[in-house]
Amino acid sequence: MSDVYAVRRARLRDRCAAAGNPAALVSRPANVRYLAGGAPPGAVLLLGPYDNDTLLCPRTPGHEGPEGIDERLRLTAVPISGDPAVAAAGILTPSSAGSLAVEEHHLTVARHRAVGAVAPGLRLTDLGYAVEQQRIVKDETEIACLRIAAEIADHALGELLESILVGRTERHLALELERRLVDHGADGPAFPTVVATGPHSGRPGHRPSDRRVEEGDFLSVGLGADYRGYRCLIGRTFVIGTSPADWQIELYELVFAAQRAGREGLVPGAGYRDVDRATRHPLEAAGHGEGLAARTGHGVGLEIDEDPQLAPAAMGKLDACVPVTVGPGVHLPGRGGVRIDDTLVVRPEADGGPELLTITTKELLAL
Amino acid sequence: MSDVYAVRRARLRDRCAAAGNPAALVSRPANVRYLAGGAPPGAVLLLGPYDNDTLLCPRTPGHEGPEGIDERLRLTAVPISGDPAVAAAGILTPSSAGSLAVEEHHLTVARHRAVGAVAPGLRLTDLGYAVEQQRIVKDETEIACLRIAAEIADHALGELLESILVGRTERHLALELERRLVDHGADGPAFPTVVATGPHSGRPGHRPSDRRVEEGDFLSVGLGADYRGYRCLIGRTFVIGTSPADWQIELYELVFAAQRAGREGLVPGAGYRDVDRATRHPLEAAGHGEGLAARTGHGVGLEIDEDPQLAPAAMGKLDACVPVTVGPGVHLPGRGGVRIDDTLVVRPEADGGPELLTITTKELLAL
Repeated sequence: MSDVYAVRRARLRDRCAAAGNPAALVSRPANVRYLAGGAPPGAVLLLGPYDNDTLLCPRTPGHEGPEGIDERLRLTAVPISGDPAVAAAGILTPSSAGSLAVEEHHLTVARHRAVGAVAPGLRLTDLGYAVEQQRIVKDETEIACLRIAAEIADHALGELLESILVGRTERHLALELERRLVDHGADGPAFPTVVATGPHSGRPGHRPSDRRVEEGDFLSVGLGADYRGYRCLIGRTFVIGTSPADWQIELYELVFAAQRAGREGLVPGAGYRDVDRATRHPLEAAGHGEGLAARTGHGVGLEIDEDPQLAPAAMGKLDACVPVTVGPGVHLPGRGGVRIDDTLVVRPEADGGPELLTITTKELLAL
Repeated sequence: MSDVYAVRRARLRDRCAAAGNPAALVSRPANVRYLAGGAPPGAVLLLGPYDNDTLLCPRTPGHEGPEGIDERLRLTAVPISGDPAVAAAGILTPSSAGSLAVEEHHLTVARHRAVGAVAPGLRLTDLGYAVEQQRIVKDETEIACLRIAAEIADHALGELLESILVGRTERHLALELERRLVDHGADGPAFPTVVATGPHSGRPGHRPSDRRVEEGDFLSVGLGADYRGYRCLIGRTFVIGTSPADWQIELYELVFAAQRAGREGLVPGAGYRDVDRATRHPLEAAGHGEGLAARTGHGVGLEIDEDPQLAPAAMGKLDACVPVTVGPGVHLPGRGGVRIDDTLVVRPEADGGPELLTITTKELLAL
């Protein structure tokens, strides 16, 4: 287990060395966790030069040492007062390193300046999205965590559907779902749970309000579990009452067909934009092109929203073992709408094609 | 109501103009909210030049327009595809502005470069913590929100104390508290709720675990409500069982005395460091100096942790109408500890001295 992190760091170090950077400073929390196996808030990872990797953690009184860091990780963990990124640069001497690659998309201008000021002879370069790119393809341990996270979300959603919904507020349903996630073993929700009723339904990222569930509503729910840092996503839309209206059935079938097309497009080698186009096309053809989201899916892992992006202008192709969401939605202002989201892992056809992690039914249920 | 935001912006604009900056770009979310009265995630505020203020919001399909922005705010709200900060710089022409002050402590190096690249003739300067400083002294509307937030937290905590605690996990108690906050009208928890039992008790920022409450435990709880964006904090420590042990009574009385000394030091004109020293001294005198946190209190408002900092090296003096926390704690490794936190508003003695917002008793309750 512990070797995994050392291997990841060695790979990144090789990549940095090839780009002429003997040392790198990783500050984005998910990247630190990916490379160190765990990290307290605010920790940064100094990679190299040579084989020396150091995790610099903010000093917290009452905590005996950095938590979650296994001694077998071949990593020195050092508690730091002040900004650990600045302390990291202070460890390096210009003669030992020469240049230090930093995450310019994460460090603020002010921190970058402080890092540069503490070691004036050190040249700061840009590490770019090297760690994020390394994170795209998951190993089987990571996928196992995602599988459990999806199972937890399925359970929480399944239990909610068995309870009485009419008359309850979006806000309470969302809290109830988050409690159930934790009941089933999640470390927490993967993102703020979305519960959207009636005219709110189908709106991406809707914040739960005090509106109560009513007969005849569309109810769309988006939730996910965080299991050991790995985050999944499931979205479903239901109808409240005995029989859905015709427009509801029609809209649901349309979004369902689009989502299925996207799922079927998940093969190794498929372009990100091709999967997006497969999902998007049925909705555009039905005249819903205007209000569509900028993308129809994205990667998941240590962050709920990571690369790849399934979007019209996205460059790149899917690899095997890349977990992504496929989640188109249509919202009709004033009336409501439908979203259907799944988390899947790209697999070769020989292995049975895409692995569906979120297995709650996608039939239109009337609750 | 709406004029409040225009007045805040005018004040900031004057300050920028005095520093030679005809225009400013505010990107830190709490600062945007403070100046615009509300903002969707990712929105930035372009102030000036002249009287033109523009709120640039990420374009979200399914949302008809920027939410929470009142039309009376004298603010133009513009939906943007891509990075709103870059779009803001694109609006300015070097001839109209000359220079643009940005929040270097919030913008990343990569975003800062993109902002600079879109308007090459524009000189980027540092706005620094100008908005944060403006936010320190609150108006009575802000204090009213904090008062309600504190009332909600008191209610949630009070209800929990009436329930059976032994045998329940930290994680469940934390979720229960967060549900009660929302039940009582909070928009959400102000920060992740802390529930720490037995050996965990008294640890600052402890993440609730699966440990169950046991007879004889110290139980320390830290929670807060977010009410209309304003966040308060309350921390209490209890004893589980019929009678506390001698060491528990002794430690509790010590922390209580320290906390009272800090509260009594909250007068307009008192130095931040003097309030910290008043709180810290009794604990140091009792031999607990080593493990103490770097500060004993801090400001609250649109963020749960804002200026001022009540810490040994903090410069500056308290003003009236500044809400702060006073929350010393002692943690004995392996045994547990005590934290007692209040949110108070600094008031002149003529007005009755510091206004205590979190009114739950600080007697040592045995539950």
